[in-house]
Amino acid sequence: MSERYDIAIIGTGPAGISAAITAKVRNKKVLLIGSASVSDKVAKAHMIQNYPGLPEISGAELAEKLLEHLRVMEIPITDRKVNAVYAMGDFFSLQIDQEFWEASAVILAGGVSFGKPFPGEDENLGRGVSYCATCDAALYRGRSAVVVGYAPKEEDDASFLAEIAEKVYYLPVYKEEPHLSGDNIEIVHGAPVSIEKTENGMKLNMKEGSITADGIFLLRESVAPDKLVPGLALDGNHVKVDRRMAANLPGLFAAGDITGTPYQYIKAAGEGNVAALSAVSYLDSLRKQA
Amino acid sequence: MSERYDIAIIGTGPAGISAAITAKVRNKKVLLIGSASVSDKVAKAHMIQNYPGLPEISGAELAEKLLEHLRVMEIPITDRKVNAVYAMGDFFSLQIDQEFWEASAVILAGGVSFGKPFPGEDENLGRGVSYCATCDAALYRGRSAVVVGYAPKEEDDASFLAEIAEKVYYLPVYKEEPHLSGDNIEIVHGAPVSIEKTENGMKLNMKEGSITADGIFLLRESVAPDKLVPGLALDGNHVKVDRRMAANLPGLFAAGDITGTPYQYIKAAGEGNVAALSAVSYLDSLRKQA
Repeated sequence: MSERYDIAIIGTGPAGISAAITAKVRNKKVLLIGSASVSDKVAKAHMIQNYPGLPEISGAELAEKLLEHLRVMEIPITDRKVNAVYAMGDFFSLQIDQEFWEASAVILAGGVSFGKPFPGEDENLGRGVSYCATCDAALYRGRSAVVVGYAPKEEDDASFLAEIAEKVYYLPVYKEEPHLSGDNIEIVHGAPVSIEKTENGMKLNMKEGSITADGIFLLRESVAPDKLVPGLALDGNHVKVDRRMAANLPGLFAAGDITGTPYQYIKAAGEGNVAALSAVSYLDSLRKQA
Repeated sequence: MSERYDIAIIGTGPAGISAAITAKVRNKKVLLIGSASVSDKVAKAHMIQNYPGLPEISGAELAEKLLEHLRVMEIPITDRKVNAVYAMGDFFSLQIDQEFWEASAVILAGGVSFGKPFPGEDENLGRGVSYCATCDAALYRGRSAVVVGYAPKEEDDASFLAEIAEKVYYLPVYKEEPHLSGDNIEIVHGAPVSIEKTENGMKLNMKEGSITADGIFLLRESVAPDKLVPGLALDGNHVKVDRRMAANLPGLFAAGDITGTPYQYIKAAGEGNVAALSAVSYLDSLRKQA
């Protein structure tokens, strides 16, 4: 990817979509990354009573109206997953599978990840624990790994890893029966409890016993924001922002549930707008410095 | 007014309407005060591109959708003007003409008043300068007053004052020809510049000369927030709020343009939601103390 976007927006709930719309109105080159079908949380809401102007709307209807707004504005959704965001000075580098994409400003609008890290997870991140099989597969040539998948779509990543690794243990954290390709993949059932570094490798403790391998991959829907963006300041579980929706790193903004309660659609949409306009101001300030 | 509202919301733009909707969803007894036709600024907007879910909507259409949402939720607009809000401890007293209404929490959502005070205005407020003829008319029995009206609807207030005062000078700051009742009202044309307290009374200096009377009434659409609410902390021209939209007085919140830029409909609607939910939390905390 040689082109540099003005503003990369991570997340396709009301916050991300609102940010993308306002950024596009302001003629910015926008990258909107997330689920093409709008965040699951919106689509599954039964009845939303307090999105002003759209009384008594279902989550599915609101999702459709937001997508329609994107179509009217000719804003595509890039349905990819961002594994890491690195602040590079006057731009950001976004790791998307094995590629690096660039943007001058970034808006985090990926919602809240409700999962707490396992004991042993944070300490061993990057030292035996990883969140992206596609990114780190090369390190596992001829070695073994445990993959904990939180959704069926993570199976592709596990299958890819199995092409390179000698042995993959796949632990599905969902009800559907996994469909994996590769004779060297073994499906394990259990409830993960904690992670330990031992002399024999990384050990995943489960309620029902344990597995040990050279590495452990935790493939969750959303990565905690401070793991996604090294150096990001949090306030509890949320991204710490000011009233302009600016995070602690220059050019980085956040909007929606990721910034804290209340978890409300209209609050998220409002914050997306503010984040986008603050990002536009930041881009103006970059231009003046240049 | 003996009944006490849970939450009084001052202003009927997107911020106030959003706050009212969310407060009603949370089963609060809501008083929504402002123009029955939604704030003029919304209704006059040509085309709004960035209110997510309602692409390419005119201001008039958005205003109609917001009013429709209020109708669906059975929230009436009380089309009155609040002249002052007094913090009384665990409730607020709202001065509306000569009446006092009560609410446990207040949300300021009246937009921005772009007018700067005249030189001499702030110093003489309550000492010869007033913002409400209906409130202070009784003080002018047998005396004279200058009334500066910023909109034709202020003429009623001036006519009422003329029933009590001996002499009223009415200075219209608009193009329409005033229609006033009362032989003792004299229409004066001019551009107000400053206010002075002199030995002969209050002197209104205009580009075209001056008038002196016992008092001066400035009847503007919106009163500056710190004049509306004694003790309110500002940040520049705006109400100072935190991320919960709380102002400096317990139980007082603000949302929308009144809290600062960007002046955007969706930002205002999002803040109204947050202010309402923060007010609900405040009401819960009051109940626990009781």
